[in-house]
Amino acid sequence: MRLPVRTDFPLGEIRRYLEPGPIVLVSSAWKGRANIMTMGWHLMLGFEPALFGCYIWEANHSFELIRRSRQCVINLPTAAMVDTVVDIGNCSGAEVDKFARFGLTTAKATHVDVPLIADCHASFECRLADGSQIRRHGLFIWEVVKAHVAARPRVPETLHYRGDGEFLVGRRTISRRGRFKPEML
Amino acid sequence: MRLPVRTDFPLGEIRRYLEPGPIVLVSSAWKGRANIMTMGWHLMLGFEPALFGCYIWEANHSFELIRRSRQCVINLPTAAMVDTVVDIGNCSGAEVDKFARFGLTTAKATHVDVPLIADCHASFECRLADGSQIRRHGLFIWEVVKAHVAARPRVPETLHYRGDGEFLVGRRTISRRGRFKPEML
Repeated sequence: MRLPVRTDFPLGEIRRYLEPGPIVLVSSAWKGRANIMTMGWHLMLGFEPALFGCYIWEANHSFELIRRSRQCVINLPTAAMVDTVVDIGNCSGAEVDKFARFGLTTAKATHVDVPLIADCHASFECRLADGSQIRRHGLFIWEVVKAHVAARPRVPETLHYRGDGEFLVGRRTISRRGRFKPEML
Repeated sequence: MRLPVRTDFPLGEIRRYLEPGPIVLVSSAWKGRANIMTMGWHLMLGFEPALFGCYIWEANHSFELIRRSRQCVINLPTAAMVDTVVDIGNCSGAEVDKFARFGLTTAKATHVDVPLIADCHASFECRLADGSQIRRHGLFIWEVVKAHVAARPRVPETLHYRGDGEFLVGRRTISRRGRFKPEML
C-alpha cells in the first residue's frame, strides 16, 4: 500500500476527524514493548487545549503500557484497512507483535515515545492530561499535542463500529453550513 | 412525519446505536422548564450497567437543567432530520421553546421525568451515575436505564458531525463477523 502523505495539522481542528466517532488504532510503547489496539469508545473534550477521552479495558494488553507510559498515539484507519482493523482487535499483544504481523509501517513521533502508524490517514500524539478516572471508569483523558493528517482525500472513508462484527462506513457528506450561526461553526 | 414504532430494547446492546458516534439530541427538564440540545461529544463506558459519558458546555442553556435534574434523554435522529438537528443547535432554549418551534412529538419516559422525542429512531433514558467530572471536564457519566428503539430500518441513516457545518452520513454497512473470535462479538 502506498503511504498517505501527512503533514502537520492544527490541533484546534482535530474534531473534524474524531468527533464523527470512527474506530481508531491506538499505538503504545513502554520499556521496549509496543502494541496496537482497536478502539471505538472515545470523545472530544475540548478544542484548546485539544482534549480527548477514551475508555480502555484493563484486560487489554495495551492497558498497562498506556497507563505506565502516560502516552499513546491515536491513529485513524480508513475503510480500506478494515480487515487489519478487525484482526488487530482479535489477537493479543501478549502473544503477537502486531506491527510485524500486520506489516504496518511505523514512523517516529515528535512529542511522544510511541510509534505513529504511517499507513493511517491521520495520527494524533497524546500525552495524559488526567489519569484520575482510569481506575474508576477506565477513562483516559488526553491532551493531543501533535496531529499528522493526510490532505487527500479531504474526507477519508472511516469505519464506525456497530458491534456484532458490523461497521457503518462513513463516506458521503452533506453540508448545512448556511444554516449555522457564524459563531457556531 | 410518521412516527417510528419503537419498542423496548436490551440495554446491553445500545452500543449498536451509540458507539458509531452519531449526533444526538439531548432532551432535558427541570422544574417545569424543558429543552433540547444537539450533541456530538460522547462515548460508551460500559455494557452492564450501560454507561455512557457526554460533554456538555456550561454555557449551554441545557447544562443547568441537566445538572440539577441529574437526568436526561439521549435521542437518536436520522439523516432525514438534519435541518431540525442543525436548527436546534443554532438557537438557545433561553429564548425559544424548541419542542414547539420544531414541531417535535414528545412521549412520556418510563424512568425519568424528561420527555422522549418520539420522532427519533431511538431514545435512551439516562440517570446520572457520576457527576464528579462535571465541574472539571464538563463530563456527565450516565447510566442508561431504558432504551426505546425502532425495529425498522435495521440500520438507521445517522449524522456524524465533522465541524464547519458538515456531516458525514453513515448508511452503508459492511460485516466482518467471520473474522471475529466469538468472545469478541
